[in-house]
Amino acid sequence: MNNTKIAALLHRVRETNPLVHNITNVVVTNFTANGLLSLGASPVMAYAAEEVADMAKIAGALVLNIGTLNETEVNAMLLAGKAANQHGVPVIFDPVGAGATNYRTDTSAKIIRELAVSVIRGNAAEIANVAGEKSEIKGVDAVQAQGNVVELAQSTAKKLNTVVVITGKDDVISDGSTTYIVRNGHALLTKVTGAGCLLTSVIGAFAAVEHNLLEASAAAVSAYGVAAEIAAAKTAGSGPGTFQIEFLNELFLLSSNEIEQYSRIEKLG
Amino acid sequence: MNNTKIAALLHRVRETNPLVHNITNVVVTNFTANGLLSLGASPVMAYAAEEVADMAKIAGALVLNIGTLNETEVNAMLLAGKAANQHGVPVIFDPVGAGATNYRTDTSAKIIRELAVSVIRGNAAEIANVAGEKSEIKGVDAVQAQGNVVELAQSTAKKLNTVVVITGKDDVISDGSTTYIVRNGHALLTKVTGAGCLLTSVIGAFAAVEHNLLEASAAAVSAYGVAAEIAAAKTAGSGPGTFQIEFLNELFLLSSNEIEQYSRIEKLG
Amino acid sequence: MNNTKIAALLHRVRETNPLVHNITNVVVTNFTANGLLSLGASPVMAYAAEEVADMAKIAGALVLNIGTLNETEVNAMLLAGKAANQHGVPVIFDPVGAGATNYRTDTSAKIIRELAVSVIRGNAAEIANVAGEKSEIKGVDAVQAQGNVVELAQSTAKKLNTVVVITGKDDVISDGSTTYIVRNGHALLTKVTGAGCLLTSVIGAFAAVEHNLLEASAAAVSAYGVAAEIAAAKTAGSGPGTFQIEFLNELFLLSSNEIEQYSRIEKLG
Repeated sequence: MNNTKIAALLHRVRETNPLVHNITNVVVTNFTANGLLSLGASPVMAYAAEEVADMAKIAGALVLNIGTLNETEVNAMLLAGKAANQHGVPVIFDPVGAGATNYRTDTSAKIIRELAVSVIRGNAAEIANVAGEKSEIKGVDAVQAQGNVVELAQSTAKKLNTVVVITGKDDVISDGSTTYIVRNGHALLTKVTGAGCLLTSVIGAFAAVEHNLLEASAAAVSAYGVAAEIAAAKTAGSGPGTFQIEFLNELFLLSSNEIEQYSRIEKLG
Repeated sequence: MNNTKIAALLHRVRETNPLVHNITNVVVTNFTANGLLSLGASPVMAYAAEEVADMAKIAGALVLNIGTLNETEVNAMLLAGKAANQHGVPVIFDPVGAGATNYRTDTSAKIIRELAVSVIRGNAAEIANVAGEKSEIKGVDAVQAQGNVVELAQSTAKKLNTVVVITGKDDVISDGSTTYIVRNGHALLTKVTGAGCLLTSVIGAFAAVEHNLLEASAAAVSAYGVAAEIAAAKTAGSGPGTFQIEFLNELFLLSSNEIEQYSRIEKLG
Repeated sequence: MNNTKIAALLHRVRETNPLVHNITNVVVTNFTANGLLSLGASPVMAYAAEEVADMAKIAGALVLNIGTLNETEVNAMLLAGKAANQHGVPVIFDPVGAGATNYRTDTSAKIIRELAVSVIRGNAAEIANVAGEKSEIKGVDAVQAQGNVVELAQSTAKKLNTVVVITGKDDVISDGSTTYIVRNGHALLTKVTGAGCLLTSVIGAFAAVEHNLLEASAAAVSAYGVAAEIAAAKTAGSGPGTFQIEFLNELFLLSSNEIEQYSRIEKLG
């Protein structure tokens, strides 16, 4: 995949406005919906057991995020996920805080066990916990070295038969055999709550328009990072409030030319 | 009703700061509260069965929105709605996604059956579903022709004995006998999540200060649209992030002169 | 405490990034998380009975806010609060709407009865209700006179053995024996939903880095107010949307020099 393909996928999202069904946490619902709208996708949030299967089966992608999980919501995620699996709708999973409490670790394991998950996105510590590699990984800092993160992405992707996206300073996207490194993004994203959660939903939007989910994920990560870089440059010195708003603008304004020029994506093999 | 009356009603909202009790979806709670505060109203969100009746009966209006409904919340809506009905508090209903799932369609029908609803606001597809006209209306596009929308508003208002507000490119407000067309607003509103939901709550604020709910609704729709137009003009080319923030500003800054100059409201008879 | 100490505490928050566990209302979760991130703290929202004790015991502070309470959430608050109490984690309580409904008044009483609460922040009417002084205080207006508010803060702090923060035009912070008056802040904060709720969480961030909770609370209130004043000055005439975003910026940008220059804190004895 090259920058032209990334630009083409973004164009396809804007042309087709895919419906992205999100079962996500209460902190980020508004930002996620606005980010998807800016990008050109059609967000829907639906949580009730009575309707999640109906919604998931007509969606282009289903995004599950356990940021503020509870039993009712986890149950809805499983119902929605099974409907998505039956109808060939890709399921994108964000294991927010896996490892921080046993409940999150156990719930992540349950979701991966009971559903066919297409893409998992998290930071290195979350992915390590999802992969059951707690003993090797102690906190986020232990896996900052790029070598370890690439290995973690590859081994987790193979083990769980899914695409794995590990975000950090550099981002790693792997299906177990092919791996991309994306060197886009900006540190101010860490000052905006839900920046990772929205990225997971943006991966959902790209996955809705491209069957190659490895490429869809890598393209989403890079386009998202370029939008952040432009927003940071335009608002330099202003602070995270202004950056956040400009970032929403850039998801809307981001052009093919900018992606061609600024996407920094490398295929490892 | 003329532009002077619209300006007078906005002034009345700002003078009296009516309490608007919202039982709304998790995506838009923050934007709804900030929009109502900017406008000059006093928003309150309360959802628990233990307190919704107490809150609704002291409110100037009760707004029910099923955007992320569940059984607990629907039950609370019915309790709040009955208290509002008993105390003469207008009930404004936003049937988000009616028709998208059976659960939403059925819940909308239940709310309309069990409560005296004063105003219903939705897009054409939602209103058609609420009216039980599924067979005639297939999706939103089928009812874009203005003639159909006016007829839909009028017939639904008569059938349900309520004021109906259908928003779209032009907005139609009808009580079954008198109908207004409002030609304000801006396409960028469709890029801000909860723009429709906030409008429903703004109708609530106007309904709290004006017994003629047809005029209250039409005035709210027009004032809201003018604020959007000014915000779009001030932020041209910036994108939906900046527009959204400027729109909140304009709900606060909107002057009688601007309403006099820009409100475009037409009475059909 | 003097301005140098306030600046030093803000610096300590930024150096140590304390984890602040919030169980708060759905309206303000996003704004609270972004405000804490801007300030330099690490926000986490966790609500499930299955995990709140695990999260609270590793936090630097636990913030409980009943803005959109329900029985499940209140139960989680009690579980989290007991874990916090056992592990010496300060509990900061925001009794949103105490007095507005019996349910809120009763729940506030239950939380104060079952937990050791370190700091309570509210407006005068809420604090009066929490103190059980309904008969003396009728609404917010009745306690606007500064003398009454100081007395209310002092007597409530003594009675409940906690630090009490009453916010209004001037802010009063008391542990029953020592009382501070803070004359910072800006009226535009009343046009931003969750401005009070975020302040409660910011008090949590300061309480996580300073054992003297009276000083931690007073410092948080003053720093928060200075950030608001600077944001208001920078965005004069723009409206509450722009102010809100600039306020998030200023929580990030606020310097020791600005605190030295603008903090207006007075010790009453």
